Amino acid sequence: MGISRNEIKRIRFLQTNKGRAEYHQYLVEGPKLLDEALASKADIDVIYAVEGALSDRIKHEVVSQKELSQISGLKTPNAAVAVVNYKDPKWNGIQGDLTLVLDRINDPGNLGTLLRIADWYGMKQLICSPDSVSHLNAKVVQSSMGAIFRVPVFYRPIMEVCSEFREQQNGEVLLAHMDGESMFEIEAPKPALLVMGSESHGVDKDLLNHADFKRIHIPGNGGAESLNVAVSAGILSAQLMK
Amino acid sequence: MGISRNEIKRIRFLQTNKGRAEYHQYLVEGPKLLDEALASKADIDVIYAVEGALSDRIKHEVVSQKELSQISGLKTPNAAVAVVNYKDPKWNGIQGDLTLVLDRINDPGNLGTLLRIADWYGMKQLICSPDSVSHLNAKVVQSSMGAIFRVPVFYRPIMEVCSEFREQQNGEVLLAHMDGESMFEIEAPKPALLVMGSESHGVDKDLLNHADFKRIHIPGNGGAESLNVAVSAGILSAQLMK
Repeated sequence: MGISRNEIKRIRFLQTNKGRAEYHQYLVEGPKLLDEALASKADIDVIYAVEGALSDRIKHEVVSQKELSQISGLKTPNAAVAVVNYKDPKWNGIQGDLTLVLDRINDPGNLGTLLRIADWYGMKQLICSPDSVSHLNAKVVQSSMGAIFRVPVFYRPIMEVCSEFREQQNGEVLLAHMDGESMFEIEAPKPALLVMGSESHGVDKDLLNHADFKRIHIPGNGGAESLNVAVSAGILSAQLMK
Repeated sequence: MGISRNEIKRIRFLQTNKGRAEYHQYLVEGPKLLDEALASKADIDVIYAVEGALSDRIKHEVVSQKELSQISGLKTPNAAVAVVNYKDPKWNGIQGDLTLVLDRINDPGNLGTLLRIADWYGMKQLICSPDSVSHLNAKVVQSSMGAIFRVPVFYRPIMEVCSEFREQQNGEVLLAHMDGESMFEIEAPKPALLVMGSESHGVDKDLLNHADFKRIHIPGNGGAESLNVAVSAGILSAQLMK
């Protein structure tokens, strides 16, 4: 019953990149997300919850509201915090028809939303450039609405992934870009990588200059300069997975 | 030069719904968004900026960093804050081919992203149910990336708007819903309203039960229960505006 000072300290450390890397664990907050973790058979180490928040059939430690607020990363703690074990997924090259590749996505809300898109379309993995935000970040986990438990995320150099995919798997590499071909004109190639740049930086220049990679674009006729990166990825994925 | 105590107080009041309603003004923060406001000829009342942040050709009051932080709603104030006058747009019924109608969208980031979609597709207006988050909320303005200056937003009872549109303009009303027809099967009807429900509540039951309104759905084959509301709206809009 309850939680020790040392454990409180350790859990707070898991709110940081350093802590998550050291322990290979991350935090999941709130009963709803916890349900998703349980349903997806995530490897849960321990669950702390306030009295009555969870069914007795879910093994957990009861903590006080005060203790919960000490381990929660949220402003308004949400009844339960779970510590989940994390294993780096094994890399066997790209699987499946379409995969999102994210170049320097730093906004955690966007990454979570992109994970949901990958999950919705049954993508077998998500690729992020090594300098992207960590997928184990609390806001990413939260906004992924459980997709984090189902879609393996790989942090790898994008140029390498794209080149290998092109050369060894004869795949198509598509780069989301203003000056691309209309998505309605491109015949949905399978398998394909769809590279999305961050809103501030766009897609990396070396990728844009690669002769074998194709630019793809969402036609629009209004005043906006761009769409949100997750919205763009959703629109392009829907068209390519048609 | 500088800014009075009373003005600081008034500007802080503009960070609230009550203040914005009373003065019919709202705040725009940061040089980038301010550029969009100027380019879109927004009706700017006054601009406060720290020394050197803006060109001399833009009329503004210079304030200290400390004063800026007193009027900014951001944790990290962004060099400039503008007070912009707001007029309720005139309602003349629905204009244009496709219009997003938002049922109880409460997340300001989502509303801003939805405004960008409306702007990207050149929609003539955006409709929100009266209980949606205010479009003049600072986070909405920020995440709209300038779309707020170009897309008129109307807060109106959705059932009324949809019924009138159907009866008087012979338009189609489409409801985004899990149990809908695939978006690839629906012939893009023009003109149309596309109703999006909030992530927590979905589309209102009275709308769903209306015999003349059609449900529309995004096919997916993965594990996710749903997509983010702005991502869904983007995917459906892209297909309907094809």
